[in-house]
Amino acid sequence: MKCKKTTESTSPNRFGTHFCFTSFGESHGIGVGGVVDGMPAGTPVDIVSIRTALEERSGRRQAAGTSPRARVEDDEVEWLSGVIQAEDGSLVATGTPLAFLIRNHHQRPEDYDWLRDTNRPGHADYTYRTKYGRYYDYRGGGRASARETAARVVAGELAAGLLLQQHISIEARLTQVGLETDPERFDPLLREIQAAGDSIGGIVSCTITGLPAGIGEPLFDKIQCRLAAAMLSINGCKGFAYGTGFDMRPRGSELYHAGEVPCPASGGIEGGLTNGLPLTFCCAFKPAATLTQLYGGRHDACIAVRAVPVVRAMTALVLQDILSMTNTTHHDQ
Amino acid sequence: MKCKKTTESTSPNRFGTHFCFTSFGESHGIGVGGVVDGMPAGTPVDIVSIRTALEERSGRRQAAGTSPRARVEDDEVEWLSGVIQAEDGSLVATGTPLAFLIRNHHQRPEDYDWLRDTNRPGHADYTYRTKYGRYYDYRGGGRASARETAARVVAGELAAGLLLQQHISIEARLTQVGLETDPERFDPLLREIQAAGDSIGGIVSCTITGLPAGIGEPLFDKIQCRLAAAMLSINGCKGFAYGTGFDMRPRGSELYHAGEVPCPASGGIEGGLTNGLPLTFCCAFKPAATLTQLYGGRHDACIAVRAVPVVRAMTALVLQDILSMTNTTHHDQ
Amino acid sequence: MKCKKTTESTSPNRFGTHFCFTSFGESHGIGVGGVVDGMPAGTPVDIVSIRTALEERSGRRQAAGTSPRARVEDDEVEWLSGVIQAEDGSLVATGTPLAFLIRNHHQRPEDYDWLRDTNRPGHADYTYRTKYGRYYDYRGGGRASARETAARVVAGELAAGLLLQQHISIEARLTQVGLETDPERFDPLLREIQAAGDSIGGIVSCTITGLPAGIGEPLFDKIQCRLAAAMLSINGCKGFAYGTGFDMRPRGSELYHAGEVPCPASGGIEGGLTNGLPLTFCCAFKPAATLTQLYGGRHDACIAVRAVPVVRAMTALVLQDILSMTNTTHHDQ
Amino acid sequence: MKCKKTTESTSPNRFGTHFCFTSFGESHGIGVGGVVDGMPAGTPVDIVSIRTALEERSGRRQAAGTSPRARVEDDEVEWLSGVIQAEDGSLVATGTPLAFLIRNHHQRPEDYDWLRDTNRPGHADYTYRTKYGRYYDYRGGGRASARETAARVVAGELAAGLLLQQHISIEARLTQVGLETDPERFDPLLREIQAAGDSIGGIVSCTITGLPAGIGEPLFDKIQCRLAAAMLSINGCKGFAYGTGFDMRPRGSELYHAGEVPCPASGGIEGGLTNGLPLTFCCAFKPAATLTQLYGGRHDACIAVRAVPVVRAMTALVLQDILSMTNTTHHDQ
Repeated sequence: MKCKKTTESTSPNRFGTHFCFTSFGESHGIGVGGVVDGMPAGTPVDIVSIRTALEERSGRRQAAGTSPRARVEDDEVEWLSGVIQAEDGSLVATGTPLAFLIRNHHQRPEDYDWLRDTNRPGHADYTYRTKYGRYYDYRGGGRASARETAARVVAGELAAGLLLQQHISIEARLTQVGLETDPERFDPLLREIQAAGDSIGGIVSCTITGLPAGIGEPLFDKIQCRLAAAMLSINGCKGFAYGTGFDMRPRGSELYHAGEVPCPASGGIEGGLTNGLPLTFCCAFKPAATLTQLYGGRHDACIAVRAVPVVRAMTALVLQDILSMTNTTHHDQ
Repeated sequence: MKCKKTTESTSPNRFGTHFCFTSFGESHGIGVGGVVDGMPAGTPVDIVSIRTALEERSGRRQAAGTSPRARVEDDEVEWLSGVIQAEDGSLVATGTPLAFLIRNHHQRPEDYDWLRDTNRPGHADYTYRTKYGRYYDYRGGGRASARETAARVVAGELAAGLLLQQHISIEARLTQVGLETDPERFDPLLREIQAAGDSIGGIVSCTITGLPAGIGEPLFDKIQCRLAAAMLSINGCKGFAYGTGFDMRPRGSELYHAGEVPCPASGGIEGGLTNGLPLTFCCAFKPAATLTQLYGGRHDACIAVRAVPVVRAMTALVLQDILSMTNTTHHDQ
Repeated sequence: MKCKKTTESTSPNRFGTHFCFTSFGESHGIGVGGVVDGMPAGTPVDIVSIRTALEERSGRRQAAGTSPRARVEDDEVEWLSGVIQAEDGSLVATGTPLAFLIRNHHQRPEDYDWLRDTNRPGHADYTYRTKYGRYYDYRGGGRASARETAARVVAGELAAGLLLQQHISIEARLTQVGLETDPERFDPLLREIQAAGDSIGGIVSCTITGLPAGIGEPLFDKIQCRLAAAMLSINGCKGFAYGTGFDMRPRGSELYHAGEVPCPASGGIEGGLTNGLPLTFCCAFKPAATLTQLYGGRHDACIAVRAVPVVRAMTALVLQDILSMTNTTHHDQ
Repeated sequence: MKCKKTTESTSPNRFGTHFCFTSFGESHGIGVGGVVDGMPAGTPVDIVSIRTALEERSGRRQAAGTSPRARVEDDEVEWLSGVIQAEDGSLVATGTPLAFLIRNHHQRPEDYDWLRDTNRPGHADYTYRTKYGRYYDYRGGGRASARETAARVVAGELAAGLLLQQHISIEARLTQVGLETDPERFDPLLREIQAAGDSIGGIVSCTITGLPAGIGEPLFDKIQCRLAAAMLSINGCKGFAYGTGFDMRPRGSELYHAGEVPCPASGGIEGGLTNGLPLTFCCAFKPAATLTQLYGGRHDACIAVRAVPVVRAMTALVLQDILSMTNTTHHDQ
């Protein structure tokens, strides 16, 4: 019991080594935020892309009838260090850690009081209480809340900006909702599920273009290891696959043809290193466990929808961490 | 070009922090081996389980008409440090790093000469050459060879021994070959594929029993992140899934029921921490890219078969690394 | 030139693994702050000891005629996450990362304008410019400023609080100023040096009591390695010594006597591990390089004076990081 | 008691991140060895410099009447992986981990039997037993033995070879024995001390030339932090100092003169980064605690003598680790 405490004494709130993101904050406290270490001095900070990603994450970008202003106010990023304003008013990184805070608005602790003694299945309620004991803060699950991903999105967009300078772009998109794979048919299905107070799973696919061949490490630090760990760290993500993934139909003879190098069936990775083709992978998200059926209130019919910008953000953090070390940054310039 | 070199300058050959395995060796050099740091002084080293796992990995355990003797000779573990012989002749860890070597036998470099200028699709040939240049050793893919997994299996069994002391057991098994899910029908299918000089994919499932609730870390170091990264580091592994994984059929209302805590649909993990139920996950393996059709010689019809002990080994390394830190070891005793 | 950038891409702003402190902020920006990860849920946060340490660091505690109020306002700690207020109004850690900010007051950028083209000998001006280029912020040396140590002091006091719970106390004190070793004579000497617009070196000694025997690691992670690295990270620290240190007079026969175990001459450390006796070490600080003689304005006659609470803070961070792992916390309870 | 065990569960046997050395072996087992990760493919391995350093470490280089042959046999390096033989017979790194073993010769366990129940003051005997319990191997102190430094010397020479390619050279030398600073007078003094069965302290100084300016990191990872930690990890090292170090005589006005940048008084480091001048530091070594007076047998009158190549080796490991990341390697070529 006592010794369990030690598990807190690591730093699970830190992501990356060379391009490093430290996350802090709670969904019901002052706010959520982070510290990003590894932005080269002089790098421009693209406020617009950060704002757009935050809107996607908050679900507002899909929602109708909300004024841009309102959105912006809702997830305003407050820069605490590491940036200076250039002559033209734009923000530029100074090379020191970028610390930022996104304050929580209109939190109503009483909304969560009923949770004080509730352990919701599929949530962190029970396991966190087992691990952290009486001080585990029951309102909104503290760190387990989706609110924490706002900080990931800000850090991820900073990384994505560096990647773009290297002509590397990341596209994440919703490719399946339940068994439906036709994007045209997603919205009606989602409305139906929502109306039923139910939830459904989804798949987010990601494609990275512009990566040179030979990026990554062999053995235990293969690029797919980094990506899988990053994706599985997103709440509700239950699986990661690249290349042929879980498709057990094709025979080797259908996938590999002598001299076909780099190999198209490899999803952009061979031997743990990029092969120069677009890198593609997908992540499976479970149906939300917070059901209106069970708890009333609003909930996400499909958490994969709002996970899209988080998948993009985590992908950017992984790639920039690897590239910060391989120094490709400085090649392509 | 030059800067690419730096990517070598990390330590991708190291796995784990508190229970740490460092791998070395090549398939065509003196041998493969490793250094295991984190075995508490006095821990017995179970030679028999190590031998058994090595036989499974080498494929000999399934093969008929091979004498146990022959097998054993083939992958003899040579202990270089960290163990002493107890009065009863058994091996005991001294608490210092355990270094071991498995010498390669009857390697015939000339077998590989034809590879000197060949880049096989789905192999590390092309990407390694891009990364490492002319010194990349073409014989057997150096570190990319399946031979390297012998060292993982030894280290993994050392970890599994510590886990057993804590009443934690790991069972890995082949659960799908191509589209076939009935184990009774695996052998005929494999023989057919082998005869055709072709290959097929497979799925390895793993079940861990005995884990207390609350093990793992939130956010970026969730237990599923560690497991996914470890599985994706195995050659040919293309996907990882736990709980509902990629199954998009069930609705939330079918999976989660008020008060059903811990939740059976969660695969033993909620909020990134163990929930006390058996932890289950599966890994997808691609069809082998080394086809008799293409290159002649022998090859594996389904690499998932020999991946089973490697999945078990990597799982043990992940869990013991986490538990070394959480110190549960010393509780349960 | 370009590749130099990569050196920024590590995380030199992070200290510790299990009890981890991430530092951010600049002397001339919004403020300095940090994120502390590893405070067990339920740990009380001692605001008074933090305030006291900050006053010592800011030099105000020694200064006459300053009202307590003023001091407090000057280095007010703003908690951004990781703490909740208990019924009695005291602060308690929730187990999630503690983020805090100390805003800068009355910064007058113009004070630093003359530095725009100046490289002061003994400062980071020249080396930072070489490394970071044009974006290196000349006002107050950015991260190199002593201002940054305010964040270390807050984090260190959080660690010191945990150590006290384990009956471990740290005492740091000024034991030498120039060649003077009699504390009674420090003040007149310091006033004389100050009046001359000159500066002088000093030695800070530290004694840790209550550490059990056997704490630390052999080889590369000996407890003295950790302490030396931590002390040398303090601006102006030029040397670290423990036990006999640089004293070359005693012969082995004067220091070691058969059976005298633990050995008093060992400064509390034998073989890299604590031996149960008080752990004592000292740090040498150079004379300040910012001289009124050279630059006018005010300066510290002896930076060792204000380094005392920083030595204490860094010592606490090292010890709690080690103990978070060794789990001694939970023994003594 | 039990929980103490966890402290073993880290990896104190590993040094460096980008150029990484893992040490294994015992003074009384099969041998000592290591795994070096981070040697770029194609780097020549200079066997001669390794042999020379090993001889200095073993004390044989100073001894008269020993044939080169004998020496070589004594510390023969057995390469287990990571090197191939070039056409001209020289060894070349393949870019995979270099594993090596130095077998122990003529070890006579019985020599150590008397130690079974002895705790020598100033040794690891007592503290190791406290930490590791009954399995701590009493013969020669296991990992605490000076024998372990043979592996450091091999790894360090590999690093030194890479540094030379970058025109960076390291010179370590004995500069003080007791109070004697005239090298001419060292030998007579050492003989006298030896004859008396006593021991004496010494100082080893180190000068690094060729380092470009701007190498290192600010704050917690200053280059002096890395060097201090590395030196303090050497058995018997009690202190580290650079620049003015513990010399409290000079006033600031004597050290710093306007415009004198880089500053000669800074020992080659300003603000934690190299300033382009030669980097100089020194380490204090205590008198050996193993006295003939106490235990009979042979002992070192001054362990600083044999520490010289170890200081050089650890310095090389620190610098190459930093440069592997900063990638200067590839610039200067």
